[in-house]
Amino acid sequence: MKILDSIFSPEDLKNINNLEALAQELRTEIISVVSQNGGHLSSNLGVVEATIALLKVFGEKKNSIIWDVGHQCYAYKILTGRKDKIYSIRQKSGLSGFTNYEESDYDKFKSGHSGNSVSLALGISEFKLNFKQDGKVIVFIGDGSMTCGLAYEGLNNASSANNLIIILNDNSMSISKNVGAISKYLSKIRTNNIYLNTKNIVKKILNKIPNSGKKIDNFFSNLNIKLRNLLFQTGSLFENLGFKYYGPIDGHDIHAMIKVMNVAKKCNKPVLIHIVTKKGKGYKFAEIKPDKFHGISRFDIKTGDYLKNKQKTFSDIFGEYLCDLASKNQKIYAITAAMSDGTGLSEFAKKFPKQFKDVGIAESHAVTFAAGLAAGGYTPIFAVYSSFLQRSFDQLIHDVSMQKLKIILAIDRAGFVGEDGESHQGIFDVSILNSVPNIVCYSPSFFDELKISLDLAIKSNNFTAVRYPKGTEFFKPDWLNKNFNNFDFYGENKNILIITYGRIFSCAAKIFQEFSDKISLLKLNKIIPLDNQAIIKSREYKNIIFFEESYINNSVAEKFGFELLKYNFKGKFMPIAVNNFVKHATMFEQLKEFKLDYDSMMEKIKEIY
Amino acid sequence: MKILDSIFSPEDLKNINNLEALAQELRTEIISVVSQNGGHLSSNLGVVEATIALLKVFGEKKNSIIWDVGHQCYAYKILTGRKDKIYSIRQKSGLSGFTNYEESDYDKFKSGHSGNSVSLALGISEFKLNFKQDGKVIVFIGDGSMTCGLAYEGLNNASSANNLIIILNDNSMSISKNVGAISKYLSKIRTNNIYLNTKNIVKKILNKIPNSGKKIDNFFSNLNIKLRNLLFQTGSLFENLGFKYYGPIDGHDIHAMIKVMNVAKKCNKPVLIHIVTKKGKGYKFAEIKPDKFHGISRFDIKTGDYLKNKQKTFSDIFGEYLCDLASKNQKIYAITAAMSDGTGLSEFAKKFPKQFKDVGIAESHAVTFAAGLAAGGYTPIFAVYSSFLQRSFDQLIHDVSMQKLKIILAIDRAGFVGEDGESHQGIFDVSILNSVPNIVCYSPSFFDELKISLDLAIKSNNFTAVRYPKGTEFFKPDWLNKNFNNFDFYGENKNILIITYGRIFSCAAKIFQEFSDKISLLKLNKIIPLDNQAIIKSREYKNIIFFEESYINNSVAEKFGFELLKYNFKGKFMPIAVNNFVKHATMFEQLKEFKLDYDSMMEKIKEIY
Repeated sequence: MKILDSIFSPEDLKNINNLEALAQELRTEIISVVSQNGGHLSSNLGVVEATIALLKVFGEKKNSIIWDVGHQCYAYKILTGRKDKIYSIRQKSGLSGFTNYEESDYDKFKSGHSGNSVSLALGISEFKLNFKQDGKVIVFIGDGSMTCGLAYEGLNNASSANNLIIILNDNSMSISKNVGAISKYLSKIRTNNIYLNTKNIVKKILNKIPNSGKKIDNFFSNLNIKLRNLLFQTGSLFENLGFKYYGPIDGHDIHAMIKVMNVAKKCNKPVLIHIVTKKGKGYKFAEIKPDKFHGISRFDIKTGDYLKNKQKTFSDIFGEYLCDLASKNQKIYAITAAMSDGTGLSEFAKKFPKQFKDVGIAESHAVTFAAGLAAGGYTPIFAVYSSFLQRSFDQLIHDVSMQKLKIILAIDRAGFVGEDGESHQGIFDVSILNSVPNIVCYSPSFFDELKISLDLAIKSNNFTAVRYPKGTEFFKPDWLNKNFNNFDFYGENKNILIITYGRIFSCAAKIFQEFSDKISLLKLNKIIPLDNQAIIKSREYKNIIFFEESYINNSVAEKFGFELLKYNFKGKFMPIAVNNFVKHATMFEQLKEFKLDYDSMMEKIKEIY
Repeated sequence: MKILDSIFSPEDLKNINNLEALAQELRTEIISVVSQNGGHLSSNLGVVEATIALLKVFGEKKNSIIWDVGHQCYAYKILTGRKDKIYSIRQKSGLSGFTNYEESDYDKFKSGHSGNSVSLALGISEFKLNFKQDGKVIVFIGDGSMTCGLAYEGLNNASSANNLIIILNDNSMSISKNVGAISKYLSKIRTNNIYLNTKNIVKKILNKIPNSGKKIDNFFSNLNIKLRNLLFQTGSLFENLGFKYYGPIDGHDIHAMIKVMNVAKKCNKPVLIHIVTKKGKGYKFAEIKPDKFHGISRFDIKTGDYLKNKQKTFSDIFGEYLCDLASKNQKIYAITAAMSDGTGLSEFAKKFPKQFKDVGIAESHAVTFAAGLAAGGYTPIFAVYSSFLQRSFDQLIHDVSMQKLKIILAIDRAGFVGEDGESHQGIFDVSILNSVPNIVCYSPSFFDELKISLDLAIKSNNFTAVRYPKGTEFFKPDWLNKNFNNFDFYGENKNILIITYGRIFSCAAKIFQEFSDKISLLKLNKIIPLDNQAIIKSREYKNIIFFEESYINNSVAEKFGFELLKYNFKGKFMPIAVNNFVKHATMFEQLKEFKLDYDSMMEKIKEIY
């Protein structure tokens, strides 16, 4: 019988003696699940032991455990009563790939975006302290998230949170290799001689710490300062920020972590425990290439190979084309916020190191840095996932638009992104861009249109965004107008006009190809600002259906309708867009759910006839 | 003749020997200007000497000087060729109260929002380094801005910026008294014994440093380490972040600063110079009450008294009423981001210290912290200026709306704010809120409506925003419906319907009072989501004019029009709102400029008749 079979809640950990064997079982389970469902592998393998220690010490419900980003919560889900559902992870109606309060009391929040955990924890901490509630608030945060300004704002406000414990999981990576001063600082602590030379001493001393209660207090009171300093490297940066610092601790040594966490439990001030883990630990392919196994699709456990041949994606095309452009133009400068691979910029980073910067998980800085680059003389291009662009709203307005500077946003993962859950869907970028004065936005449907969009952006003097979806291009009709005009009308029917843009244009195009006498089609390429001529011409139609893979509020459809009204349109206008947060499922299931796929479009058209 | 009369650009500083006398002249000038025009006094008085030193050392155009926030740039403006225009500051068509690239080459950016200076500087720095351009990039940033995550993201990315010099102006205040760990850390450095005991020694040594070039290099090479440590307190936090740290230096000692800046000029790595200044320096009333003289209206130089009697403001009412509510409800928790006074929360902070937190200039954290408080059990209210809410966009969506948590936003300074320039106008909050799923927003026109809005917010389970303008209430008609319904129609005329909300409802109400047979009136109280009944009833009117003190894109007018179209409205819809960034002027001039005042409304109505 597996040890896991006896665990239904963290309480059951009390009876387990061989925690290392449990770790092994969890690891096997996680590899198996991710190989079948895809997901985050490297990070989940890295925190197996830490999760066990965490739940062993803080598993009681009076404690609140908050995961930063939350992609590393698979072992946590298995150990907090969701073992039976783990194989449904990331599937429609199954477990989320992130923490989710709808699934379990053990998950305090839905997660996904970096750096918010400390601030959330401080809120809970404050309530507990003021209302004299028992229990600790524990944050589990990776070193990558420490590059994020929000995390810093949290740390800066933590000094009176005496029930707060931060576990800093230092694997020297966020998604790509980590960057910035904090990362260098952690690496300095990690690799300094004291830590390396005394690793065994540390272990011996930790083994002597008694297991509970008053005894721990005494042990620490009696420990002389020299020994204490030997045991725990002084973390001046965190101590300057008001934390009691313990570390670095081997994050794969369950017992060492349990000891230190028990010490922290007794502490009446904010504590930061610095653990060092290895991303991908225990699965050789992931240990060698942790970034490949960060967020992945299904793979063969034996070979580490993907089960599906990878198709070219919009990100690939973007990265390749930007290399072409940069080889002829040394003013081009590419920026990513910890997403070199995801945004297709890895090759660019290698070829043009002086024209490239990974700023860490710091999207606000990325935009303002781009503004500075533009003021200096560069043509900066910030490649960013739609969902993370949300973190740059003020910077887009205050540091770019208001300054009349020209930067280019390459907005990847615009629209549905499938399995990654509510926090990762790219449904708000259009709302954001519509709020920014004097911006231009193109929404290409196909690879070649992406290239043309980038050309236009680089040639013009405008603050320009180009948005494109995750994955590959859909059906591309051969009757498509080759000029990338602001808009193109197709068809002669004056009864029904379908308006759409981006990826789902392909669904409408298929319908048009089959029923070109029954509908007309308006493909928008430049979605912000709208071209007046497109609106004026649209007035001629009786029924307009606008399909849009974006949040309905502040959508292009809304803007289009508003303009139609001003131009005295008398027909019927039917916008169909995303009207809520989007849960994890396949991208096709998501399109269907919000009635943006081929079948739903057909149905809507039939409804009118 | 005044020394100032001989200064037309920073170059002219070369010929000035008595820099202290110049400082005195600048101070007199600044006090005089602000007493007449209003503006930022305390901070400008604090940096007079630092500005002289800065321009003496880095005044050449090959250097780029970037001011964080930029409200402390009055001496800088006077010394960089804008002496003659300084009395026009903050007035329509006059100088801006912040830096502004449209005014002068010496201003690199328009400024106003905290913490962006390092990121902007890094962009310029990178271009200079890669294209081998001469000159330094200098950031002048207050300790208040160091509480801001964006500044931290910048610092974390600065380690290769070898031409970057940061001058950290430490006056232990942002606007209110400073908060957080960084602030405590700086205070520790400032007040530690070495600094206090050696202040004179430091001065003596600094006096021995030669004034230029190679000699400085030699001097520093020869200085032994002990002496160096005595001279400059080791700033471990900043050194951990990769900076060469010099400080703390007396920020009112021009010659000491010049010496240290010359040292920094020779340095080939990022430098941080920590200067300590006194806000309000040289004007006794401002020294005693630096926060009163932070941003002020006209005052009497002799007495320090305001020239206008202060009327009750929406902020006052908000603060008072929140005290009332909190005295009956210990679950109410108020948050400000360094704006206790501005948002009317000073009294609340004193009365309910356990239910109040000033988080520093950290609006993103403020919202996420509020989310954590709500998850804990509090009813959190974040009082924030409209313009600064822009910095919380992702947090509103990801940490509140997606979590279905109830927090309350009290959005102050919504709409035009007058003299404070483009960065401070509250014209984007409606666009923001319209993008956030499941939020409710009230826009009270009058004090009592503000109270009712807060009651509604607290009673409901919704994520709710209440937005209200800077200053006091306008004309309040006696025929107003006392129930604060979602909306109210007034009048029987079916030809023209005026729709509006918030403060400018008063202008429309005046017109209606005079011409109640000529127009009808729709007052919106709940602006998000729109009440369907208001839209359905509006269909009956021939001409609808929608006046809105918000940015036109993603406005309520746009949403209203979009809904009208869906309901087959056949009349004429005329939205009038803010269609661009808003320059400094009086609030009334701004209303006039965007055709939102009484006269412009009348004109528009006449146009239709």
